[in-house]
Amino acid sequence: MKTKAAVGLELGDVPVVTPGPRDVLVRVTKTGICGTDRHIYEWDAWAAGRIRPPLVAGHEFVGIVEDTGVGVHRVKPGDRVSGEGHIGCGHCYCCRTGQSHSCDLVDILGVDIQGCFAPYVTLPQSNIWKVDEAIDDDQACLFDPFGNAMHTVMSQPISGKQVLVVGCGTIGLMAIGILHVGGADRVIAVDPNPVKQELAKIMGADVVLDQADGAAVREVTDRDGADVMLEMSGHPGAFVRAFDCVRNGGMVSLLGISGQEIALDWAKQVIFKGLTIHGINGRQMFDTWYQCESFLRRHPSLIEPLITHRLPFDEFEAGIHAMQGGAAAKVVLDWEDAKV
Amino acid sequence: MKTKAAVGLELGDVPVVTPGPRDVLVRVTKTGICGTDRHIYEWDAWAAGRIRPPLVAGHEFVGIVEDTGVGVHRVKPGDRVSGEGHIGCGHCYCCRTGQSHSCDLVDILGVDIQGCFAPYVTLPQSNIWKVDEAIDDDQACLFDPFGNAMHTVMSQPISGKQVLVVGCGTIGLMAIGILHVGGADRVIAVDPNPVKQELAKIMGADVVLDQADGAAVREVTDRDGADVMLEMSGHPGAFVRAFDCVRNGGMVSLLGISGQEIALDWAKQVIFKGLTIHGINGRQMFDTWYQCESFLRRHPSLIEPLITHRLPFDEFEAGIHAMQGGAAAKVVLDWEDAKV
Amino acid sequence: MKTKAAVGLELGDVPVVTPGPRDVLVRVTKTGICGTDRHIYEWDAWAAGRIRPPLVAGHEFVGIVEDTGVGVHRVKPGDRVSGEGHIGCGHCYCCRTGQSHSCDLVDILGVDIQGCFAPYVTLPQSNIWKVDEAIDDDQACLFDPFGNAMHTVMSQPISGKQVLVVGCGTIGLMAIGILHVGGADRVIAVDPNPVKQELAKIMGADVVLDQADGAAVREVTDRDGADVMLEMSGHPGAFVRAFDCVRNGGMVSLLGISGQEIALDWAKQVIFKGLTIHGINGRQMFDTWYQCESFLRRHPSLIEPLITHRLPFDEFEAGIHAMQGGAAAKVVLDWEDAKV
Amino acid sequence: MKTKAAVGLELGDVPVVTPGPRDVLVRVTKTGICGTDRHIYEWDAWAAGRIRPPLVAGHEFVGIVEDTGVGVHRVKPGDRVSGEGHIGCGHCYCCRTGQSHSCDLVDILGVDIQGCFAPYVTLPQSNIWKVDEAIDDDQACLFDPFGNAMHTVMSQPISGKQVLVVGCGTIGLMAIGILHVGGADRVIAVDPNPVKQELAKIMGADVVLDQADGAAVREVTDRDGADVMLEMSGHPGAFVRAFDCVRNGGMVSLLGISGQEIALDWAKQVIFKGLTIHGINGRQMFDTWYQCESFLRRHPSLIEPLITHRLPFDEFEAGIHAMQGGAAAKVVLDWEDAKV
Repeated sequence: MKTKAAVGLELGDVPVVTPGPRDVLVRVTKTGICGTDRHIYEWDAWAAGRIRPPLVAGHEFVGIVEDTGVGVHRVKPGDRVSGEGHIGCGHCYCCRTGQSHSCDLVDILGVDIQGCFAPYVTLPQSNIWKVDEAIDDDQACLFDPFGNAMHTVMSQPISGKQVLVVGCGTIGLMAIGILHVGGADRVIAVDPNPVKQELAKIMGADVVLDQADGAAVREVTDRDGADVMLEMSGHPGAFVRAFDCVRNGGMVSLLGISGQEIALDWAKQVIFKGLTIHGINGRQMFDTWYQCESFLRRHPSLIEPLITHRLPFDEFEAGIHAMQGGAAAKVVLDWEDAKV
Repeated sequence: MKTKAAVGLELGDVPVVTPGPRDVLVRVTKTGICGTDRHIYEWDAWAAGRIRPPLVAGHEFVGIVEDTGVGVHRVKPGDRVSGEGHIGCGHCYCCRTGQSHSCDLVDILGVDIQGCFAPYVTLPQSNIWKVDEAIDDDQACLFDPFGNAMHTVMSQPISGKQVLVVGCGTIGLMAIGILHVGGADRVIAVDPNPVKQELAKIMGADVVLDQADGAAVREVTDRDGADVMLEMSGHPGAFVRAFDCVRNGGMVSLLGISGQEIALDWAKQVIFKGLTIHGINGRQMFDTWYQCESFLRRHPSLIEPLITHRLPFDEFEAGIHAMQGGAAAKVVLDWEDAKV
Repeated sequence: MKTKAAVGLELGDVPVVTPGPRDVLVRVTKTGICGTDRHIYEWDAWAAGRIRPPLVAGHEFVGIVEDTGVGVHRVKPGDRVSGEGHIGCGHCYCCRTGQSHSCDLVDILGVDIQGCFAPYVTLPQSNIWKVDEAIDDDQACLFDPFGNAMHTVMSQPISGKQVLVVGCGTIGLMAIGILHVGGADRVIAVDPNPVKQELAKIMGADVVLDQADGAAVREVTDRDGADVMLEMSGHPGAFVRAFDCVRNGGMVSLLGISGQEIALDWAKQVIFKGLTIHGINGRQMFDTWYQCESFLRRHPSLIEPLITHRLPFDEFEAGIHAMQGGAAAKVVLDWEDAKV
Repeated sequence: MKTKAAVGLELGDVPVVTPGPRDVLVRVTKTGICGTDRHIYEWDAWAAGRIRPPLVAGHEFVGIVEDTGVGVHRVKPGDRVSGEGHIGCGHCYCCRTGQSHSCDLVDILGVDIQGCFAPYVTLPQSNIWKVDEAIDDDQACLFDPFGNAMHTVMSQPISGKQVLVVGCGTIGLMAIGILHVGGADRVIAVDPNPVKQELAKIMGADVVLDQADGAAVREVTDRDGADVMLEMSGHPGAFVRAFDCVRNGGMVSLLGISGQEIALDWAKQVIFKGLTIHGINGRQMFDTWYQCESFLRRHPSLIEPLITHRLPFDEFEAGIHAMQGGAAAKVVLDWEDAKV
């Protein structure tokens, strides 16, 4: 947990709360470490601006229902569950029209409210997801990032499309896998890191490039560029070049976050090309979750190659260090193995 | 016509061509002057880079079919017609999947091929549009810019939506009119020019603002910003501020062209907001034309207030000067009154 | 209220309940009588199969919040509200993916649970709709049927479309009005009843026909039939003929309910024509409600001409008799004028 | 060719025509026999009403360009091509808005104009499709039926959806294959014929049922029925039962043709369920063709198992008899092996 406004996370005692009438108390079994958790650990500008310690971080989890409020009917103690970490206000235009992932007053697990890097976590029943028995714990604790990848991919039609994925971090790699088994045509992956390039091939990329280069992409597509471009890097240079790789009339989905402003030649790169661009945030509740459930139970290989580190929970700092060193794709922490 | 690579357009003799087997020769009766024609007249950087003189400019017209090729069945001599100025290659992915307005090899009337600032103009029959008798010549010669406005408006759902229109040039004003009779909720117009503000009210704007100001827009919408934003100004400052006026989950369509790059804070202004952005180019062939036909024959008032100047064709320079001086919204040139 | 399984409704004492933690207790001021209420009154086959007396009927209302549960934050006592009568289970695939109006376990106000033909009615806060002050009580108590009309119209694109509305009952007439101010092209109404035909013209129909006749419709459209057909009659003969009035590639939305099976020549009437057909049920929560709010505050005339009877609540039987006699379009009951 | 209005097809001399200015003359190498060809052979009621002998039947082909008109730029002699058999009029509302497959004046190859059961066939260049070298002739001559399957599948979202395919004829089996590699969740196939059931499993069906039974389908889906139902049988009983297998809010696409009218309880089976139904006709030009190209070059196994008979062209009657006997899925005729 983050106890003070500074670098680091510490182990501390977290009180176990009694769930409210519509809440579910979950005993956490496994959690994933997200880039967001690393930002909180490192206490960067974003974290310092958003986080109010003390806070338990973490939002990727699987666990067992321990207790439920009186108004909870969806699950019962003993059920294996994960959960959606975006908790909308429920009353605004977004929340009432199927866009609660974009609610302006959203509370995010492990960011605005107490997260899952703890023995127990509490969520409203409306955010709880009962896990299909065909999906194992390692996959189930990663519904959240896998859902980001799914939401990004499914924000435009992909059947038979030639797709450029810029940035092969964990979510980019998951997107490549989803495209590969989901009916896309050629998948072209971009990342300068040879380890990530190798993983991209394992996930099903047909072509791997060092950078987003318009001429190179046009050569490997048989239209005048990619039909669809997924920006998963947040890297300013890659971002701009990636727009040059999209064919006229193409579609773009943006997930990668940059810390700075990025300029485009909008006339040339967007307007005359007739592009459509989607900003991607969270997961569509709960269409994305049903899609994730389907893909995960049919294709376990969509996550398995990406878990490079499995650690007991009390060694979470080793996991963060592995991420910082670039050696890790996904780190999964096991609470049951932890010595706490 | 543009006879040399320099400022100005000159009157000159244009040979009347015999139409090819699938072409239609049209005797022009009225034409509109577009901002593009002004760029060609002024020989700015865009024009100098794109135009290859000698060229007859002009792409907004109505006229009478004079002659047709042997393979033309859609119209016959004597029919009153206008036409789509984007001529796709017909063979590329865009052209074969309903996106020929975004064809990479498109020829544009009056830009890449001889235009309609002439007694006669030739177009392929597939680009010819027979004009409904309920639509008069002043409206009919403006199908092209009215179609830009229609395409921009119809690129997202507008029924019951609160819409911000940034920039009240002719196309912005047309968009306001279309929104007003087309089922939108509140329409908020932005333009610093009092003449344009007055026209915006005439066209049906509910609120008129001097600039795109997030707080002001949130005050007059009853969500957390506009549902839809149409950028019709191309002004860099307005462009950036306009994104702050859109609610989370909202939609944006971009038509206005800027001569320079514009930077956004993509994370804050697009990605976390979950926006969808459309680059708008030309008109959807020919869905947009059918919609224009419908709106124009039911609502003549959508164009009438915007024609501020009617001139005989040989006084076209007076029209361009009126546009340069900011006094003109739309200038229509009448060939039948011309002394040539 | 329906006290026994037989024809009729009786006045009776209805206990005022204390709202549950997320419920809202509303003092009813006005209610509308729906065709469903008439079915319950008449105790037809559908009613006998679905209704379990004792039941308070009624689902169209406006009222004032009297009391709220501890978990209610959306409204407070004194607020003027209406409400969505379809209460989804909240846990099924439909409810979790934006289709709760089609929830298989839905409870419908005044059908499955106690309705609004009573001084007080209770609804969950998630179903409560706070009424905009620009919308008067007569309109506000009809959000429900107006929402059916809106949902039917908005289930396909209508801008510039030529639309056939088959059946000019109250909801069909509302649909005509929405089409008229919502950007449709020609609206062709079908009803054999001259009173309804006159109302159709008042609501904005361009053409009124006695019956759905393919040749007549093709004559007044300028495609090969209507782009869109809305079936609001439930009359088997009209239903079949109406399909012959739709152009190839057209769209159909079905709201009218028939008590019997209806046969189509699917190959000829649906498959070779490439039609799309929507079965329409309830209202999209809550997109439809926002659209209704927008249209009603901008166009009060969309409902006003359709209220043919205003009665104090204790004269509800006179209202039902007016509906049975065919003289009534919409009957509104005023609780404040009632002598009970 | 069909020389007279009676049962049978005869071999006859077909003159080789000189292509018109925009036409392409193709030397046929392989053709498939479609159910439509069998109808023409058998001279059933549909054929007798539509076909005007003398007519060369056949519309599924691959071949080599032999000659081109002066206005043809898309292909040149020697190119390997297939072609879209629906030739729209080019001028109607459907043809001008991306629905030319539903043109009311469409000419269909081998039905309304001379087909491909001949050494040479002529098509307009706009209907010609150049075949990717990764696709072999057996696959390429079946673009047409594979495109029917693709169009049916892609008419609604299928990613992660549980899909019921009713009828395992060749097109139904192709649809199962497309669903399997295209991102669908469980695929449930229905056909009483054990040979077809076996093929359904080979193509990737997860569950195979003898008939469309609501209870059985609900048991193998984990919603309240299938998300999507594709009707490929045209069998009246299966058609009606199949609607009972779809969950509320689900989607239906209809391709199978029945010779008789079929009645539904529309209120119960369509309206209260909130279904969307698509009538499927031909292929979307040319989105479907691009999707087919993509799927065929990545997944040759989508067609290979379905070709049960390969015959020289002059033995076409043996192929039709194999289809009549129920032993054949797809029959491919090879012109190069033919003794004519």
